[in-house]
Formats: sequence, C-alpha cells, structure tokens
Amino acid sequence: MAQASIGDSEFDRGTAITLREPGVYDAQLSPGWTIMNVANGGYLLALMGRALGDALPHSDPFAVSAHYLTPSTPGPAVVRTVTVRTGRTLSTGQASLFQTAEDGREVERLRVIASYGELDALPDDVRTAAKPPAIPPLERCVGTDVGPPPPGDFSMLDRLAMRIDPATVGWAVGAPSGQGDMRAWFEFADGRDPDPYSLLLTVDALPPTSFDLGLKGWTPTVELTTHIRSRPAPGPLRVAITTRNLAGGFLEEDAEVWDSADRLVAQSRQLARAPRE
Amino acid sequence: MAQASIGDSEFDRGTAITLREPGVYDAQLSPGWTIMNVANGGYLLALMGRALGDALPHSDPFAVSAHYLTPSTPGPAVVRTVTVRTGRTLSTGQASLFQTAEDGREVERLRVIASYGELDALPDDVRTAAKPPAIPPLERCVGTDVGPPPPGDFSMLDRLAMRIDPATVGWAVGAPSGQGDMRAWFEFADGRDPDPYSLLLTVDALPPTSFDLGLKGWTPTVELTTHIRSRPAPGPLRVAITTRNLAGGFLEEDAEVWDSADRLVAQSRQLARAPRE
Repeated sequence: MAQASIGDSEFDRGTAITLREPGVYDAQLSPGWTIMNVANGGYLLALMGRALGDALPHSDPFAVSAHYLTPSTPGPAVVRTVTVRTGRTLSTGQASLFQTAEDGREVERLRVIASYGELDALPDDVRTAAKPPAIPPLERCVGTDVGPPPPGDFSMLDRLAMRIDPATVGWAVGAPSGQGDMRAWFEFADGRDPDPYSLLLTVDALPPTSFDLGLKGWTPTVELTTHIRSRPAPGPLRVAITTRNLAGGFLEEDAEVWDSADRLVAQSRQLARAPRE
Repeated sequence: MAQASIGDSEFDRGTAITLREPGVYDAQLSPGWTIMNVANGGYLLALMGRALGDALPHSDPFAVSAHYLTPSTPGPAVVRTVTVRTGRTLSTGQASLFQTAEDGREVERLRVIASYGELDALPDDVRTAAKPPAIPPLERCVGTDVGPPPPGDFSMLDRLAMRIDPATVGWAVGAPSGQGDMRAWFEFADGRDPDPYSLLLTVDALPPTSFDLGLKGWTPTVELTTHIRSRPAPGPLRVAITTRNLAGGFLEEDAEVWDSADRLVAQSRQLARAPRE
C-alpha cells in the first residue's frame, strides 16, 4: 500500500469539508475517528480548523480555543464560520459545528474562536527553553494494540500508530502510576506526515491522564485551547501530557507536541470533567 | 480609609456593567486600569466575565477563552453577549466588547467564549499534585513602586499592591535573569479580597516574562485562556508565570494563581507577540 501523504490520507478524508456557500461547509463526521461512538474532540477541532483555514485570509491556525457543548456522532454535520477580524499578519474567525437532531433542529456541538497566521512567514529565531520529553525510543514503547482490548468502540486507535511510554501505560494492566502523566510517540497508521491541522488532532489523541491517576472512565472535554507554533517536520511526533490539578471534579491536561527536529510545535491545555468515582 | 470589600472597591467600580437590554451591557473602561493608555487584557476579561455571569444561568467562570482584536482605550464600551448553551451544571456563552470609533462605527476589541458553573457546588476533593511557587515571604519581595519609574503610563499599578520575587525583578535594574519567569504576591491596593472575577484580572496583571528574558518592549496578547478552579480564600495571592517557548516572534505565558489556603485557584495560558528587537 502506498504511503499516504498530506492531502491524501485517512486523516484528510476524515476531516474533509465541502464549501456549500461562503463561510458554510458541509462535512461527514467519520465513524473512523470515534471513541465509544463519540467523535474525538481533536478530530472535530482539526475539521473545524480546516474550515476556518479556508474561510480566513491566513493559512495556519496559531491559537484555537474550543468549547465543547454536546457530543458529536458519526454522520452529516455543517460548519458555519464567521470572519471576526482580518489583519496584516493575523486574522481571527469563529466557527460552530452543528448536527441535525431527529426532530430536524440543528444542535450545536462545539464553538471555536481561532486566530490564524502564516507559519512559514515567522522568523526562525528559536529560544525555546523547554526540553523534549524524556520518552524511551519508539521501539521500546507500547503499541495500543497490545494488552487487553479496550471496552467498546475505539475506532480512532486503528487510524493511529501510537506507542505509549511504558512508564505511563501501567493502567492497562491494573497498575497506574498515580502521577497523572501520559507520553507517547504519535504517527498516523497510514504514514501521513503531520501538518498544522493534524496537530489539532494530536493534542487530544492520547489516552486520558485520568487512567494514569487510577481513575476509571472518560474525561469529557469542556474546553481545549491549542497553540500551533511551527510547521512540524516530517516523521514521528512525541506527545507529553500532564495533569497537576485534579480537584473539585475537574482536571486540566497540558499537552506538548515535539517534532522530529526537536521543535515544540504545539502546546495545548484542556479543562475536562473528572470521572465520577 | 475603610478597607474595600468584594462589591465595593476600585476593581468593582472599574469593571462595573449596566444592563441596557437583555444580553447587552454598557461599560465605561476606566483610565485607572491601563498600561501605556491601553486597557489591560485581564481587566477587560474581568469586565466581560461579569457581563457573562449576569447573562448566564450559572454564576462563576470555569473556562474563559479570549481572542484580542484591537486595543481598548478608556471610555465607553458595550458588551454584547450570546447564550450558546445552558446545561444542568455548566452553561456556555459568548461575548464581544465594542467601542465606537470616531466615524461612529462599532469596532470589536475582543471576543470571548466562556463556560460557567457553580464553584460552590463542586465537591471538595482536592488531589492537586502541583505545589505552590517557591516565592520569598511578602515582606522580602519588591514593590512596584521601588526602582526607576516605568516609562509612560502604568496607572493599573496604582490599583494593585504587587510585590515581585527578587529573583524575577532583575530586569528593573538592567540585570534580567534570562529564565523567562515572573513571580509576585498579588493584592489590591484598597485591600479588596480576591474573587472569581478578579482572578481573571490577576492572571494578566504581572509584568511580562519578556522582561525577565531581557527583551525590551511589551508583548501584546493574541489569545488568553483562563481556568478558574476554586473560589479563592481571602488574603494575598501568589502568582507564578513561566515562558518556555519563545520562538518565531511569539511566546506563551503560563500563569498559576495560588490562594492563601494553598489552593491552585486559577491557571491560564496566553499566546503573545514577542517584542521586535
């Protein structure tokens, strides 16, 4: 099978949008990017990012803030965008994704404000003080196809080739570390290289840190803000997520994405509901 | 002078809003909360947070995402809010702040999506792994009235009683540490205790980390997302801000706010433009 490429891949097909009229895009939410039959939040973000990239005069997401309202399911969807402001180096837009309920009403799934620019126009001075995560080499990490099969539908995992740091995968065998960390190598199963849109998916693609904290159950995202800081180099990404503030029934997940050139290409933080114990 | 209180203070008067019609609030941007004659981003966020708190069925900001479009100046402003979704424990709203230009057109200054809940209804289990910042006792920290007066108008500093960690104030005497940190004790000059709305100001009130990196000039905020995790206890707050990814003409600032009860009451991250050298 020929290796997929940016523009021709499962991710591109899954996040494809069709212009219906200025600012309005039709999409088909794919059953291939779900967890427990709910569309993954990062997948939705990438799809909406594509729509805003088409609607706005600047090409690349720089800061994307999303508030999740109701769960999205596979099937038709429409993205309605609004141009909020266009500037010389940055533009800002807003987008909402809707799906039609059985009674015919449109129900909003998530709402996004995002500021876009041109990543390739940025100066190349890099004074990043942060260091890449300490994660073992890819071949020493654990594929998501190892261990007991997850309960229920995790179809998105079939699209990805993630390999999790053994230090953060104890939960899969009943021995969570309790630290609230998750680290993994991230690639697409079909070999597609990363790009700014796929980074929007990557920040929300790993198992939740709640697993490493010994909690059972998923952590629905309330809000997710992602910064895209550089076009990622080809090749595998390293993702490191930490939770330091599990309290009052909520937790935050801080994600960093590093590319093969050791650039910190994306940073995100989400607020999520902790599972009820 | 009687100590100010929540509801009767410079901060409350400066962020006051008046309902004009459902969802629409008039405000007067105060010259007392500016830096270089531009309204401080956290001040604007707090003002808009107050409007959304009135418009939405839930009382307290949980996650507030703001994209800054054009600088705001002292004078009249209008906040237009939209209720996006109301749920049992969370509601989501959107708000825009406008000022009228000389030609009579409304110009949007910033746009916010925010999810609100009831902080007092949260369970009190706290498993926060993060630790309060290592900052010297308040009396060993440096008031902002010490050292050479800042160039230009910094009126907001008169409303605050900030005391900066000596380790992060070297820039004021030409010796920045180069680390990209800023730490300070935060109080209001009139003694008002903190509350969820004032936390929205606090996360953007400290001098920019760019000073500690040895950069000259301000770092305009592109986007700022704040999580409010707990109603703060009365008394001084400790604020710790770090920048780890200065690259390509942008930088992020991660802020943590800790209250007198050692709770991590707020976390934020902003994307800002680095000063041109």
